Amino acid sequence: MTFFTELWDELLPVGRDAGSGGYRRYSWTEADAGCRAWAERTAAGLGMQAGYDGNGNLWAWWRPPGSAGPAVVTGSHLDSVPDGGAFDGPLGVISGFAAIGKLRAAGFRPARPVAVAAFTEEEGARFGVACLGSRLLTGAIDPDAARALRDAAGISLAGAMSAAGRDPALLGRDDELLASLGAYVELHVEQGSALAGLDAAVGVAEGIWAHGRWRLDFAGRADHAGTIRLADRRDPMLPYAKTVLAARQAAADLGGLATFGKVQAVPGGVNAISSAVHAWLDARAPDEATLLAVLDQVVDAATQASAAHQVRLSVSRESASPLVTFDPELAARLVGVLDREGITAPVLPTGAGHDAGVLAARLPAAMLFVRNPTGVSHSPAEHADLADCEAGVAALAAVLADLAGS
Amino acid sequence: MTFFTELWDELLPVGRDAGSGGYRRYSWTEADAGCRAWAERTAAGLGMQAGYDGNGNLWAWWRPPGSAGPAVVTGSHLDSVPDGGAFDGPLGVISGFAAIGKLRAAGFRPARPVAVAAFTEEEGARFGVACLGSRLLTGAIDPDAARALRDAAGISLAGAMSAAGRDPALLGRDDELLASLGAYVELHVEQGSALAGLDAAVGVAEGIWAHGRWRLDFAGRADHAGTIRLADRRDPMLPYAKTVLAARQAAADLGGLATFGKVQAVPGGVNAISSAVHAWLDARAPDEATLLAVLDQVVDAATQASAAHQVRLSVSRESASPLVTFDPELAARLVGVLDREGITAPVLPTGAGHDAGVLAARLPAAMLFVRNPTGVSHSPAEHADLADCEAGVAALAAVLADLAGS
Repeated sequence: MTFFTELWDELLPVGRDAGSGGYRRYSWTEADAGCRAWAERTAAGLGMQAGYDGNGNLWAWWRPPGSAGPAVVTGSHLDSVPDGGAFDGPLGVISGFAAIGKLRAAGFRPARPVAVAAFTEEEGARFGVACLGSRLLTGAIDPDAARALRDAAGISLAGAMSAAGRDPALLGRDDELLASLGAYVELHVEQGSALAGLDAAVGVAEGIWAHGRWRLDFAGRADHAGTIRLADRRDPMLPYAKTVLAARQAAADLGGLATFGKVQAVPGGVNAISSAVHAWLDARAPDEATLLAVLDQVVDAATQASAAHQVRLSVSRESASPLVTFDPELAARLVGVLDREGITAPVLPTGAGHDAGVLAARLPAAMLFVRNPTGVSHSPAEHADLADCEAGVAALAAVLADLAGS
Repeated sequence: MTFFTELWDELLPVGRDAGSGGYRRYSWTEADAGCRAWAERTAAGLGMQAGYDGNGNLWAWWRPPGSAGPAVVTGSHLDSVPDGGAFDGPLGVISGFAAIGKLRAAGFRPARPVAVAAFTEEEGARFGVACLGSRLLTGAIDPDAARALRDAAGISLAGAMSAAGRDPALLGRDDELLASLGAYVELHVEQGSALAGLDAAVGVAEGIWAHGRWRLDFAGRADHAGTIRLADRRDPMLPYAKTVLAARQAAADLGGLATFGKVQAVPGGVNAISSAVHAWLDARAPDEATLLAVLDQVVDAATQASAAHQVRLSVSRESASPLVTFDPELAARLVGVLDREGITAPVLPTGAGHDAGVLAARLPAAMLFVRNPTGVSHSPAEHADLADCEAGVAALAAVLADLAGS
């Protein structure tokens, strides 16, 4: 058993659903509190000071006497999508702690402070905004708008934070904290199979595709499914179905990605025509112009199909993330460090959003990816081999030593 | 205020959702218990004996001394679809009590016992099988299968009945009760606008279209919406969308009806490709051959679309109701009685299922429809004018007097 596997096994049961085998670690829930308690215990075991910023992000500090200057931060997130896997997020936090354990065991003394961060609600699974914690920290979302976000049960972010013992009045941009940071390096399981194809255990991120979430509300008219004539119906399920197919077509036509993974039919009776269908589009593209073109094509199709069925359509943007190109100098430095360690790390773009992409607007940020043999993610079947995870820890330790060294 | 409006106003608030204005009267819930308590109080006020059969159906008996022979039963159901209207079901039960009140006030003494029945779970909104109470009574569903039915929270019918203080061991066909019944006449709000078009307040049912519910499970593979290539996806939302459109087309091609009003995407994350989509098809047609042809066309389309996306499809029938032609003699007798009362009642088919259609397999059954000016049903906007409801009560009283008279 290594320090990595010890930490891994401790966190593994927290927030795991016995039925699906997947994780339901939503922000400010009991499962979330369990993850935070694990991180606090782990930090304490390493002699690190753990605490929270005003946005609820966890920071565990390694600040030995004599360390000074801009901090080197690693980390990721502990929350999950519904029925997510064990790796997406936690691998980065665990690897951060494991890398620091490795550096301490080797007698390394950082010249600069080092921190492991765990950002709140990276997945947006509870309040609908991905990278909520890092967006709040960097001022990418208005704190009033964030406080008013509501989960599926109608509970606001402000209410959920208060219930968890946090003060929602403290939400918002934190320039003092940001000014103290010199670089952020996030380690993450790859959410595709590019590294597997390249036969590499570890990769370095080039950038993050432009992406966003849009909510489409199709409002029709409730009716009895057994009596009203087809011609008299205003069934919102029909334009929704057309839109799902149009989104796939738009993504294929334009070289992007488009997915409907969440849909709600209201009232949801088998023998009732829906009064409304609420649906969420996730769209991504290699640049912003392509992303907007995909969205336009989807909305055009939805508008036409809605008109044909006398259904009212409204579209609202829930989040949008511009194209991120990570600091090329930092990425090159990582590749060089790893090369000296005998690790050949390919440089890859990704379609997945990450806190590193949000933080990149304010400080040099970079990402390390760990090979995912099947590419499956956001699923209980998500997996990375232990040897690759340990290679990730070794790579991260080398990177931290380089960045925080004298 | 009439006796009808008094009863109407008493029942109106029970199980009404303040948000939608619709009803959520699901079987064996608190709202259901409230409806049953109302019926028991109403029966007691009329000097009727209220009780339950082994299937949880409510029977309120008017058996004055000297009455004998096969009973005349009226009634309907008190449960609702999610966010249903106030009329679908309760109008028949209220009108039954109101008609008996009218007959008693007029000094009428029935030669045969008269009952008002309220059948359990007519809508199938909780346990998925429409006309569950009348199906159990007539043996149209196996009691073991019924006991094992589960609601969305995983609670079985047996568990729900036990929690409500009923013994699920008593479920099943009740030949003794059925043998004591001579005729069943159900009054119901029309769930279409045929009577409005014919300028008639009341109509008589000719029959009920063949109809059924099928569950379609599309099993794909969960994945991250932002990383996996379109070609590598096994997204079950895509064949579902194709199937929704194919169902509408099949209904239009073949002269039936087909609706998807309930769908569940699992796990339901915005940035996750669904591992599964569960969907329910409601299909209806003027005869069984057409119904099967609609179903075949839908399942063919679903099968093809699923294969194209490497999605596994399974289809299971949740309920099926053959074409019902109501007893022509009884229907003609109703038309004649109403004609003598000065009421011209057109004879109409309907696409909606009713307990009367299930009971028709065991005894002469008939239905009276009350005009629905917009045709809207299964919606909070469902409506019938008070004058038409009162006309329905008068018509039902005349029919009961005729059938139960000496």
